[in-house]
Amino acid sequence: MLEVTRRLNDRASLTLYMLDREISYQVFKDHPTLIVCPGGSYLFRAKKESEPIALTFLARGYNVVLLNYTTYFAKRVDLKSDQPKTDPQSHYPRQLSELVQALKVLKELSAEYKIDLTRLFLLGFSAGGHLAASYAVHWNDHQYLNKIGIDANDCLKLQGLLLAYPMLTGELGDVIRHGQKNASIMEQLPYLNSAIYGCQQPTQAQKDELNLVQQVNANVPPTFLWQSLQDEVTSVEDSLEWVTKLTKLDIECESHFFGSGKHGMGLANGIAAKTSADEDAACSKWVELADLWLKRHDSITEEA
Amino acid sequence: MLEVTRRLNDRASLTLYMLDREISYQVFKDHPTLIVCPGGSYLFRAKKESEPIALTFLARGYNVVLLNYTTYFAKRVDLKSDQPKTDPQSHYPRQLSELVQALKVLKELSAEYKIDLTRLFLLGFSAGGHLAASYAVHWNDHQYLNKIGIDANDCLKLQGLLLAYPMLTGELGDVIRHGQKNASIMEQLPYLNSAIYGCQQPTQAQKDELNLVQQVNANVPPTFLWQSLQDEVTSVEDSLEWVTKLTKLDIECESHFFGSGKHGMGLANGIAAKTSADEDAACSKWVELADLWLKRHDSITEEA
Amino acid sequence: MLEVTRRLNDRASLTLYMLDREISYQVFKDHPTLIVCPGGSYLFRAKKESEPIALTFLARGYNVVLLNYTTYFAKRVDLKSDQPKTDPQSHYPRQLSELVQALKVLKELSAEYKIDLTRLFLLGFSAGGHLAASYAVHWNDHQYLNKIGIDANDCLKLQGLLLAYPMLTGELGDVIRHGQKNASIMEQLPYLNSAIYGCQQPTQAQKDELNLVQQVNANVPPTFLWQSLQDEVTSVEDSLEWVTKLTKLDIECESHFFGSGKHGMGLANGIAAKTSADEDAACSKWVELADLWLKRHDSITEEA
Amino acid sequence: MLEVTRRLNDRASLTLYMLDREISYQVFKDHPTLIVCPGGSYLFRAKKESEPIALTFLARGYNVVLLNYTTYFAKRVDLKSDQPKTDPQSHYPRQLSELVQALKVLKELSAEYKIDLTRLFLLGFSAGGHLAASYAVHWNDHQYLNKIGIDANDCLKLQGLLLAYPMLTGELGDVIRHGQKNASIMEQLPYLNSAIYGCQQPTQAQKDELNLVQQVNANVPPTFLWQSLQDEVTSVEDSLEWVTKLTKLDIECESHFFGSGKHGMGLANGIAAKTSADEDAACSKWVELADLWLKRHDSITEEA
Repeated sequence: MLEVTRRLNDRASLTLYMLDREISYQVFKDHPTLIVCPGGSYLFRAKKESEPIALTFLARGYNVVLLNYTTYFAKRVDLKSDQPKTDPQSHYPRQLSELVQALKVLKELSAEYKIDLTRLFLLGFSAGGHLAASYAVHWNDHQYLNKIGIDANDCLKLQGLLLAYPMLTGELGDVIRHGQKNASIMEQLPYLNSAIYGCQQPTQAQKDELNLVQQVNANVPPTFLWQSLQDEVTSVEDSLEWVTKLTKLDIECESHFFGSGKHGMGLANGIAAKTSADEDAACSKWVELADLWLKRHDSITEEA
Repeated sequence: MLEVTRRLNDRASLTLYMLDREISYQVFKDHPTLIVCPGGSYLFRAKKESEPIALTFLARGYNVVLLNYTTYFAKRVDLKSDQPKTDPQSHYPRQLSELVQALKVLKELSAEYKIDLTRLFLLGFSAGGHLAASYAVHWNDHQYLNKIGIDANDCLKLQGLLLAYPMLTGELGDVIRHGQKNASIMEQLPYLNSAIYGCQQPTQAQKDELNLVQQVNANVPPTFLWQSLQDEVTSVEDSLEWVTKLTKLDIECESHFFGSGKHGMGLANGIAAKTSADEDAACSKWVELADLWLKRHDSITEEA
Repeated sequence: MLEVTRRLNDRASLTLYMLDREISYQVFKDHPTLIVCPGGSYLFRAKKESEPIALTFLARGYNVVLLNYTTYFAKRVDLKSDQPKTDPQSHYPRQLSELVQALKVLKELSAEYKIDLTRLFLLGFSAGGHLAASYAVHWNDHQYLNKIGIDANDCLKLQGLLLAYPMLTGELGDVIRHGQKNASIMEQLPYLNSAIYGCQQPTQAQKDELNLVQQVNANVPPTFLWQSLQDEVTSVEDSLEWVTKLTKLDIECESHFFGSGKHGMGLANGIAAKTSADEDAACSKWVELADLWLKRHDSITEEA
Repeated sequence: MLEVTRRLNDRASLTLYMLDREISYQVFKDHPTLIVCPGGSYLFRAKKESEPIALTFLARGYNVVLLNYTTYFAKRVDLKSDQPKTDPQSHYPRQLSELVQALKVLKELSAEYKIDLTRLFLLGFSAGGHLAASYAVHWNDHQYLNKIGIDANDCLKLQGLLLAYPMLTGELGDVIRHGQKNASIMEQLPYLNSAIYGCQQPTQAQKDELNLVQQVNANVPPTFLWQSLQDEVTSVEDSLEWVTKLTKLDIECESHFFGSGKHGMGLANGIAAKTSADEDAACSKWVELADLWLKRHDSITEEA
């Protein structure tokens, strides 16, 4: 395995974990590549959606690219006691721009590291799911990308998109579950709009721009989506609407809505669980289901 | 295990497979009970949704009640070569009436066989899913049940409903997948409306009555639903709408929409597969997911 | 599924659970048959090694024949408080004779129920493992069988033998684990020799006759064996010797010795567990391993 | 994850893959460490027993240390067409010495990288299994280690030893399976004794020294061992004797002898398989079984 890190700017980077192509003496195999966007409300990047995810898919035969995108908090702090140092310029669509830069880097490195650019998948968690879905919605919309300073020619076609309990609109603080809002989100509330919209009071136009459910279109690649119905942070209704719209467009959207669990479980098994509340026997099946889904879509690529 | 068969009428019966309550010498355990409604377009009852399903859940610790409801074909024939003998009186809601009769029988037998009536689940496949969902929608609607000759007092509260690629409206022949309709359904087409509505040309009122998506209400129990997005017989859109409506009502509806597979796979593994086309590695996970879901909802019952 | 019970004598019977051969409309499939011998020190038949085992393998596509052989206790009692009524004539090799009678019944029923006699497997637990292994060692030894009143012509060739924590010698009370003997076995001790040998003080010749490890020979079919190394009732060393001897004879003996667990766990999962001490995550894998093993040996049969 | 490589000499090194201890913001978890010795007849190091193994256990929550020990071939070549450049000094016990050096490095790095030296496991494949078992047999035998130039004080107590189809004597070319010897081993034959013993004609004393089965003793840690009975390179009989001897010493030796498969399958799944002949559904279960075994022995450590 080769671990290669590339800086995108002073705050963002990508780490490539490239599997050895020589699987046996003088026997070579190319691997598909999975780009991972961890979540964290665009404020920080969640640990449990980074390394454990990367390792899990590496072990299953995927090259993994971990996108360490810019976040609104310059450094994560305990919001109960500390005031975070913020980076006011770091809000959407800066992360989308960094994701496209990362693809440009992949293109540049593809010859040297033999990255097959026709076998790319993108996986995002929570706010990282917003980033991934945003790419999926806009990747060949030259007009929109141009407007926000991105060259659509840098974009690459994905073989598939994976969304884990994604944030699909900018309205992260609105979910009420069992009559109350999530405590962590409540702590983040004073910063959320700045991190997402770059201002405290977004206009309707800004809200519309970040509402990806309303922008589903025929260019979205096949999607795999999972979420817990007990999710107390991102909206299950938004996800259902996403699935419904793709289905109506005849784009495959495998989806798993688990009755148990909660928001932000990552692998949902014991690997990165703080307590047993971070584990769920049903939700933890998503990895194997996603692997089957990825392998099927990757083989479609190979055949084509 | 005790196998008990009871006739409901000259064409319908139920078979109870009751697990031994004595799991070890002088140690007793009560088991939850799962009522199974196989599919078959209300024309016949599918083999692969009967015995293999019953055995799979028996082996996982559930008493199973197999409902052998009345169907429009008096005897199944090969529609390619034969003309079926039909039973014109056997159409919906006769099957709903038989399901309620089956519950009445369970009540009568509950003392003798120690059937815990507070731990009942209902699982339906395809047209059997229509039957199960119809019960879930109407079970305590005295007015509707009375109108169709059923005494709502015979109904029992379910702890959960499981739907496998359910038919949720009477419009079975309308699904177009990859530009064409399913060949088996095309063969059945001349009989479908008679089997479902009791006439060739149903009125809008009849269509509305059998459209269960439009009748979702707060009395539907927690639901587990799965379907293949490649389903070429029952509507994925209907299922998505069912899930969305329950979710809006804050009723848990765990749902799994698999990208691969097809209609009518039953277990979707090798047990009852005619060919490998009847197997799907992803879809076959539904049994373990359903088992986790059942055990969770059953333990809610136990605690209550 | 067809459930057929046949009496062998006033105390023994066999129950055949025959899967429906019609797996889909007018599509037929023959199933292999697994004969199950529960354990119980030849004193009684253990519940958890009967019905849950039968259902587990039925659900996996095997016809199951449960052998309800004669035991030394006429009726099981709580040995802590009660004196059991015993049946002095019911000791080995009476059970072996009953097993051969059961095969004779299978032969008689094979045409009617389409039992494929070339696809037979035998699974025994604990003392039932002694019974099964005894058959495997002696099944075509005309001289020995004749001596104990069995006609070797009634025997059938097995495709495979499965032994779960088997008793392989008559010395059941000798295992010491963590410095002490198993409490249940200590309670049974006054009856064990009578149940096994038919007398309180067996001669060396009797001990040799029941010691199956010393009688391993080239007629034993391929074997699958599993046991917990924490077994406090039957000897792990005997099992290891059994495996070693078969291996030297170039007869396949797949074996799984788990570091955790204990004697008599049956499925070793939650289905028939009295408490969590009856479950073991590692041991419970034996069912899937046995299923893979059975399917492989069954397909060898099919090809041949 | 931190990847750290340390040179042991001009030909050997170790690579440490250290999981992030911070599993969630400001939540830390120490991980057990697994040292991996790939196989390759002491001639080379097998690819499929290196990276895929490391990644699989990293993903399951273990720090992994890959030991790149010295081999007899200076560079692997295709023996069908090429003459290998050999390194005559690189034969056993040089690799044992390198393994002990690696432990010394771990000790030196333990404070900096927070490696818990009381939670060490050692996993060896084939010839790497000989290396691992050799350590397990000799690790606190000061006299023997001193004789071969190793300071026993550099050794560390293991919590467990894992052996995958291990070579347990120096007699690698002796296994005959289905009447013939393995083709790859036949190609290696001219070099094997030099790689293993450092000479073409080893004395009986040399053979005895490398025969680990005869040296099993009470200092061997609990062991997990698996092998295919179809192994055509290393001796199943040796493994059975190893298991039997440990069992007699009352040292836990969980063992899995699979009826199907062959030598050198590594993970035995599709990840590093050249063809489907490198996969086996039964053998591939060893990873999950090993994980359960490791977690159980690791928790014993934690409690102690």
